[in-house]
Amino acid sequence: MTGLARSTVAARVDALMAKGFISPVSEAQSTGGRPPSLFALTPDARLVVGVDLGASHVNVAIADLTGAVIVKERHQIAIAAGPEEVLGSVVSVTSALLATLGRANRDLLGIGIGLPGPVEHATGKPVTPPIMPGWDGFDVPAWVRQRIDVPVLVDNDVNMMALGERSMRWPSVDDLIFVKVATGIGSGIISGGELQRGANGIAGDIGHIPIARGADILCHCGNLGCLEAVASGPAIARRLRDSSRQADTGADVVQLVRGGDIDAIQAVRQAGRDIGEVLATCVSIINPSVIVIGGLMAQAGEHLIAGVREVVYTRSMPLATEHLTIVQSQTAADAGIIGASILSIDHALSNGVLDELESRA
Amino acid sequence: MTGLARSTVAARVDALMAKGFISPVSEAQSTGGRPPSLFALTPDARLVVGVDLGASHVNVAIADLTGAVIVKERHQIAIAAGPEEVLGSVVSVTSALLATLGRANRDLLGIGIGLPGPVEHATGKPVTPPIMPGWDGFDVPAWVRQRIDVPVLVDNDVNMMALGERSMRWPSVDDLIFVKVATGIGSGIISGGELQRGANGIAGDIGHIPIARGADILCHCGNLGCLEAVASGPAIARRLRDSSRQADTGADVVQLVRGGDIDAIQAVRQAGRDIGEVLATCVSIINPSVIVIGGLMAQAGEHLIAGVREVVYTRSMPLATEHLTIVQSQTAADAGIIGASILSIDHALSNGVLDELESRA
Repeated sequence: MTGLARSTVAARVDALMAKGFISPVSEAQSTGGRPPSLFALTPDARLVVGVDLGASHVNVAIADLTGAVIVKERHQIAIAAGPEEVLGSVVSVTSALLATLGRANRDLLGIGIGLPGPVEHATGKPVTPPIMPGWDGFDVPAWVRQRIDVPVLVDNDVNMMALGERSMRWPSVDDLIFVKVATGIGSGIISGGELQRGANGIAGDIGHIPIARGADILCHCGNLGCLEAVASGPAIARRLRDSSRQADTGADVVQLVRGGDIDAIQAVRQAGRDIGEVLATCVSIINPSVIVIGGLMAQAGEHLIAGVREVVYTRSMPLATEHLTIVQSQTAADAGIIGASILSIDHALSNGVLDELESRA
Repeated sequence: MTGLARSTVAARVDALMAKGFISPVSEAQSTGGRPPSLFALTPDARLVVGVDLGASHVNVAIADLTGAVIVKERHQIAIAAGPEEVLGSVVSVTSALLATLGRANRDLLGIGIGLPGPVEHATGKPVTPPIMPGWDGFDVPAWVRQRIDVPVLVDNDVNMMALGERSMRWPSVDDLIFVKVATGIGSGIISGGELQRGANGIAGDIGHIPIARGADILCHCGNLGCLEAVASGPAIARRLRDSSRQADTGADVVQLVRGGDIDAIQAVRQAGRDIGEVLATCVSIINPSVIVIGGLMAQAGEHLIAGVREVVYTRSMPLATEHLTIVQSQTAADAGIIGASILSIDHALSNGVLDELESRA
């Protein structure tokens, strides 16, 4: 299958065994000749770090080579404090977590970091991120690598979530859209099995697509009627305040819905319809087989997703919805750290990174 | 770079030379040791066939291994006559063109066929194509291969056009949308350098996305307000008939525009704005760096594209439009046959097809 000579394969298997990456698991069934052997990856031979940064939180995980999280830690931070303070905290949390496992930097294959803004794919630098003052053009990979010398991969947080959700729940699905509905609204798109970044790293940025019901609502981006200005957590909270409810944030809305507040339930369902309006268009353009709804507002239960389904199944072409599944995220708050870990693992195992790291070890 | 041993490379280069695929072009600059040699592909060592089928035409080309069209022929057909009659015509035109070149089936590496409907990527079978009665599920590759025994690749016509336009005009662009505006409206999407088909082979099917101005207009698909029902060639012609113009088809509209008819110019410009409304959303979702407008209606000159630009640059996010180019197709009616040829060449040169074909020769 590889096109490599038998002797080459044997030499490489020996090298991987010597480094502890793989070990024999059993004698396989022989079809004649020398009995073949089966080898499996040793999951914790090396580790990766997965980081999910939001406007006000950092979530850091150490994962093994299968992407399983071994240990994780979540802190409050202010992304607006700037890259050096925030990334400094990421580095110290990483070191502390490694210490609890009795492991060191040399056991790491890489670090994946999800940021809440657009990221230039080739360089890992944030590009005019609206909620991240001080981060524009900051060389995140270089800064982190000066402290922990392993490959550092940076991507948009929702892209990471799409990767994480797919690897955990939909490993055989090649066309998937992950939609995060929280303070903002964004999506990560996997098409033909590949994460799509677009020309400027902002593919999937659906929060500022105008929707019909938003004509009079001003968005913080300066336009009228953006999806995010109508259907995000804060937008729903604002509407509920107009009906005299105590709702300052998306989390308050989720609480009201869980408490059975009818106005809150109706508002969340309508937000689902608004999101569905944009997703119906995404379905025509991308033709996914799975849409996953995640982020804080998805925790309001089935109301949000019921609104999404109502509109998508009404408005999209029959052929596009015949086998389309629309579901709630199953990885909850961990999608981001899992995806960031997976991105690191894929990079390390496919780009000769192993050779480079091992040659220094 | 390949990871292959020097002796393996030498053996393969010798084999390719023996078959006439490559020939030495010059002695390269030596960096010490045995002088290296430069080889180049011999463009017409083998040929491919590129076929573009529309509702009422078939365009067949024979191209060389660089995708350059050597000879081509265009006929009127009725796609509704069914697959056997239409594909029979494709086969006989192909044989006739090969004969004029003094070449035979054994010189072919493959045939690419673009169809005006959804195609299941894995099998090359049309899937419930609306304007192709009798074609649903028909095994196009098998039928053609029984007559000309080479790999047959089938895809949607607009996907082929996207490939053709990219290879001829934008070879270094990885994120491009090709929009065909004719009797219908559709698009082919190249993201991250790869043609995107989606889960059911209908990615890019933008003709049935509802637009604001279409609320009262019934589409042949059964929904209200689809882009295609408002902005396609026949839709514009219908509007002009209401103003007492002689316009039965999109071609009539193009004629009126070329003749300076103000109502026709305004109607085409407005259709451009309608298409722009949908493309502004595509820009947020896909984040392309190039949008190409092709198809018959693009031949109405700058009026259509001016309308598209007007809306896309107004409505899309600044970061997404900063480096976005929106242009008219440069390959005119040949985009489809060029793309179909390119698809065949890429398949043949990357999938061991050469070995298979040569072992039978």
